[in-house]
Amino acid sequence: MIKLYTFFRSSAAFRARIALNLKGLAYEPSFVHLRKGEQRSPAYLAVNVEGLVPTLEIDGLTLSQSLAMIEYLDERHPTPPFLPATPAGRARVRSLAEIVACDIHPINNARVLGYLTGTLKCDEGQIGDWYRHWIDLGLAALEARLSREPETGKFCHADAPGLADICLVPQLFNAMRFDKDPLTRRPTLKRIFEACMALEAFDRAQPAKQPDAEP
Amino acid sequence: MIKLYTFFRSSAAFRARIALNLKGLAYEPSFVHLRKGEQRSPAYLAVNVEGLVPTLEIDGLTLSQSLAMIEYLDERHPTPPFLPATPAGRARVRSLAEIVACDIHPINNARVLGYLTGTLKCDEGQIGDWYRHWIDLGLAALEARLSREPETGKFCHADAPGLADICLVPQLFNAMRFDKDPLTRRPTLKRIFEACMALEAFDRAQPAKQPDAEP
Repeated sequence: MIKLYTFFRSSAAFRARIALNLKGLAYEPSFVHLRKGEQRSPAYLAVNVEGLVPTLEIDGLTLSQSLAMIEYLDERHPTPPFLPATPAGRARVRSLAEIVACDIHPINNARVLGYLTGTLKCDEGQIGDWYRHWIDLGLAALEARLSREPETGKFCHADAPGLADICLVPQLFNAMRFDKDPLTRRPTLKRIFEACMALEAFDRAQPAKQPDAEP
Repeated sequence: MIKLYTFFRSSAAFRARIALNLKGLAYEPSFVHLRKGEQRSPAYLAVNVEGLVPTLEIDGLTLSQSLAMIEYLDERHPTPPFLPATPAGRARVRSLAEIVACDIHPINNARVLGYLTGTLKCDEGQIGDWYRHWIDLGLAALEARLSREPETGKFCHADAPGLADICLVPQLFNAMRFDKDPLTRRPTLKRIFEACMALEAFDRAQPAKQPDAEP
């Protein structure tokens, strides 16, 4: 049985949920409450010493880091593929995914916002400005590339969802928490977001539909 | 001719330089001075709309995002390999690389430290504390994994350098700017760092040996 350590609101866990759903792989969720600090409990650190979610238990392995586990799923279960067939296509899709996974998400995740509030005593306005600063930079880059590059199709790359879409959608959900409408000025992201959310694999993975969801 | 847009002190560009050297690929460097803001010049944004280094021009393509370009180099030039032959091995190496590329580096890079100083008016002490907080978390996770996991060899994975080493070494150079000795408490990282730096491909890629290096 595949087991996913997850938290409804974690963007990285959301990526893993979408990937498992797209591959048609059933999994047993194990809930790690990030705001209660369960990711730093001895029990969880024994599973994942990095103290982060998600963790994926599969094929007798314990995998950390969402991009690494998504590439693993793609290598072990190649259909439907998350990456194009050519090295050039794969580089494009990975680079789009990394705009989210390296340039936006790490700067805006819960532990960084917690440090800004707790240690640097930033107020709510400063937190909102911080959040929007980084997300605006990253989403502007994504909109520019996706609107101009000819490889963009119904999804980030051609006409089937893949690694870039898997990263993009959770980041847009996250953005909506600090920005009422991050998509109005970004028509290509909006179009791709809607195409993704029309798919059951994405819809079923969204935070509000998880068993551990909170209002 | 391969062209790399680089800045001597950029960790992500340092990764790309190591990767090109390990593959034995000669390249022409084009220097983008991050502290002078050249990455946001119209000329550079026309090359890379993300406004970040490195950018790699190769095979008629323009690639952004260091991990994506390193995987591209590995796919097009498979010898010596940057990733193990098995999906499990590849997931392990990618996850080690992503501890650096997703959990440490993005929070501590120049643009984030610039925002802390310029907008949030953090003083030097607060910047140092911020830096060390994130690097300590990430390096502790790496030391814990590399010291315990049986796949660790002379390098992060077995006895040849790969993607994880390519990410680790620039991060350790970076760490030394804010922490006199980040390696004393981390014997496994220290051992692997020294094994890497004994290789010409790593040594030649280091910041101080770049044509654009400054004191």
